Amino acid sequence: MNLKPDDAEAFLSWLRTQIPLVGAMQIDQLTLDDQGLTLSAPLAANINDKGTGFAGSLAALSTLSGWCLMTLYLRSQGLECDVMIAESQIKYLQPVTADFKACVSLPDDDVLAPFLLRMREKGRGKLPLQVEIQEQGKMALQLNGVYYARIRC
Amino acid sequence: MNLKPDDAEAFLSWLRTQIPLVGAMQIDQLTLDDQGLTLSAPLAANINDKGTGFAGSLAALSTLSGWCLMTLYLRSQGLECDVMIAESQIKYLQPVTADFKACVSLPDDDVLAPFLLRMREKGRGKLPLQVEIQEQGKMALQLNGVYYARIRC
Repeated sequence: MNLKPDDAEAFLSWLRTQIPLVGAMQIDQLTLDDQGLTLSAPLAANINDKGTGFAGSLAALSTLSGWCLMTLYLRSQGLECDVMIAESQIKYLQPVTADFKACVSLPDDDVLAPFLLRMREKGRGKLPLQVEIQEQGKMALQLNGVYYARIRC
Repeated sequence: MNLKPDDAEAFLSWLRTQIPLVGAMQIDQLTLDDQGLTLSAPLAANINDKGTGFAGSLAALSTLSGWCLMTLYLRSQGLECDVMIAESQIKYLQPVTADFKACVSLPDDDVLAPFLLRMREKGRGKLPLQVEIQEQGKMALQLNGVYYARIRC
């Protein structure tokens, strides 16, 4: 992605200044590698009445992680964009009982390349992303989202 | 639903003690009537980098409102249950630019009556609920969720 780990740190710091819920959820780490992105949050700030992860927090973290990946990926390609989620389907597969991470990877090149071409030609495009939250090695949540981007005027 | 407005106030106060994000999002009102439930939150605590409602907050408020309705409806029928969301599909239709409310109604009796019968007979059941967030008279978000309940042992 041509992004350095330092970019992740700076992006998360900026996010905290823009989205109060990022601070409230105590999102404490954003990691990047060539394939994707991980956002981490502690259980304590995101707990529910049953002592497990609040579904609203899980939905928010997974939704945000896809948004971060798409924003940072486009930036790494030299495109400063407004990114929005258009729709998502979320499956809650099991309770989350510890600090948790949402992980999202870039789609394969047969999806990514035409998307990038469309962004450069039309200035806008949609990309499907799949986000997961794991719990003790099993999938606790799966989000299939469609994100929309347009180049900032 | 056989629920008094006072029940709504007490339920929201209890929620604040159980789910830190309810306080962080400054969810400030829960209203109940015979047909459904409304949860309100201010834009300021739930804003994003574009000055509109953060998708994660919108997802969390709409997810929570269905959970509240199902919990309170079952309680009104004499059933103390654990309620969980099983899955949801969310469409983000337009930005939210002011304080917002998630509104959810009970389904029609042809869905509700068999669900209640199953709850009484089997101690567990699933119910589909549709939640909306409006923006200036138009739908800004629509969530179709499936919630699961089981009677507390």
